[in-house]
Amino acid sequence: MTYCVAVLLESGMVFASDSRTNAGLDDFASFSKMTVFERAGDRVLVLLSSGSLAGTQAVIGLLRQRGEAGDGQATVWTARTMFDVMGLVSDAVRAIGQRDGPYLEGSGGGFNASFLVGGQLKGEPPRLFRMYAEGNFIEASDTTPYLQTGEAKYGKPIIDRVIHPDTTLGETAKCVLVSFDSTIRSNLSVGMPIDLIVYKRDSLAITHRRRFAEGDSFFRQLSDEWSAGVRQVFRELPELVW
Amino acid sequence: MTYCVAVLLESGMVFASDSRTNAGLDDFASFSKMTVFERAGDRVLVLLSSGSLAGTQAVIGLLRQRGEAGDGQATVWTARTMFDVMGLVSDAVRAIGQRDGPYLEGSGGGFNASFLVGGQLKGEPPRLFRMYAEGNFIEASDTTPYLQTGEAKYGKPIIDRVIHPDTTLGETAKCVLVSFDSTIRSNLSVGMPIDLIVYKRDSLAITHRRRFAEGDSFFRQLSDEWSAGVRQVFRELPELVW
Repeated sequence: MTYCVAVLLESGMVFASDSRTNAGLDDFASFSKMTVFERAGDRVLVLLSSGSLAGTQAVIGLLRQRGEAGDGQATVWTARTMFDVMGLVSDAVRAIGQRDGPYLEGSGGGFNASFLVGGQLKGEPPRLFRMYAEGNFIEASDTTPYLQTGEAKYGKPIIDRVIHPDTTLGETAKCVLVSFDSTIRSNLSVGMPIDLIVYKRDSLAITHRRRFAEGDSFFRQLSDEWSAGVRQVFRELPELVW
Repeated sequence: MTYCVAVLLESGMVFASDSRTNAGLDDFASFSKMTVFERAGDRVLVLLSSGSLAGTQAVIGLLRQRGEAGDGQATVWTARTMFDVMGLVSDAVRAIGQRDGPYLEGSGGGFNASFLVGGQLKGEPPRLFRMYAEGNFIEASDTTPYLQTGEAKYGKPIIDRVIHPDTTLGETAKCVLVSFDSTIRSNLSVGMPIDLIVYKRDSLAITHRRRFAEGDSFFRQLSDEWSAGVRQVFRELPELVW
């Protein structure tokens, strides 16, 4: 399984993904699920993958190759808007789905690759989308400023309570990390390292990117202080009257 | 869907269940999922139901009727241990499953009724079980002092962080209510009223039972103070160092 979150704020965007992949309970591995296309001053694109690793790697591989082809076709490097980028990602998802899908039906799973795609292209505000395995997609709005994929339920309540469009980037990053900590504690199919990007609106460059590996001292401190803080809040909540 | 939680503590037990039932998105209703068998000074049994309402009501109905039959067969009123109670619940689940199951296969769902069952019988410590729709069951232990059914993921992280066997009954009740608040905010298939029982070890009587209906002032205060407290904890967490 997987857990990915992307948040669209007034001040920018926050992206985070776990790194656990598994084929059954006895076959775990670690692969980053975060892909960046960046040309400083012009565009920043971040893709967070979920689904079958073979499927998501093939889609990313196709986007990369098409981006290097130089045959005059539109690519992630030349698209003028995020909506056009989503059309290109959709084309790649459908191309791989058509190629691999029929061979996967027999094994029960079928083709399964979906993405959170966010970023900013020069001339546009930052935008955030969720691409389904069928190649259709939705865009985040200020009533729902975040999108998740994978094991989303454990980490959803804390995001719902804390994050609004005007929450700061720093606070949002901490909240997203706590959301990951909650999910990893509760579900074996989500695991460290966590990849995190905090993107400042209109910077058109990735300046804050960090990987939190198993045992990361900041992550552990965050987790410990969060647990202690939460227990303190409980002690201070009003007593139940019978 | 449903959300139910039961917790086994050194000082007693806490039970809570939501009341939403639905057959499709356009057919919602409200039914209590909490059933109590109590003979003060002798036994307290609490059942929390999940699954198809027809199935769980039939199982409870059968347990009640068999309890009133007076034909010398063991019943929930005469069983000597909680393990024996579980055998009786299992018999009832399987009897209804055999009766209704074949008629439900065609509609896709099949027979589906499961229960959290906890309580105390005179001469035993309090015990807590989870009964599956197949009639087999597990018992909670001090490494896992709580059991959930239904939409369990949203509310699990907060319980994992706060509740240990030595947590007080009052604190556990507050934590369970916050866990419900988190779930209800995130999932339409779980809804008020919430039924809550706090059982004090060796009291062999239900003395603290309360229903929280939509708009309950204590529940709203708890939810508001929890949200404010959590946001405060975030502000005080260490800043991310890049």
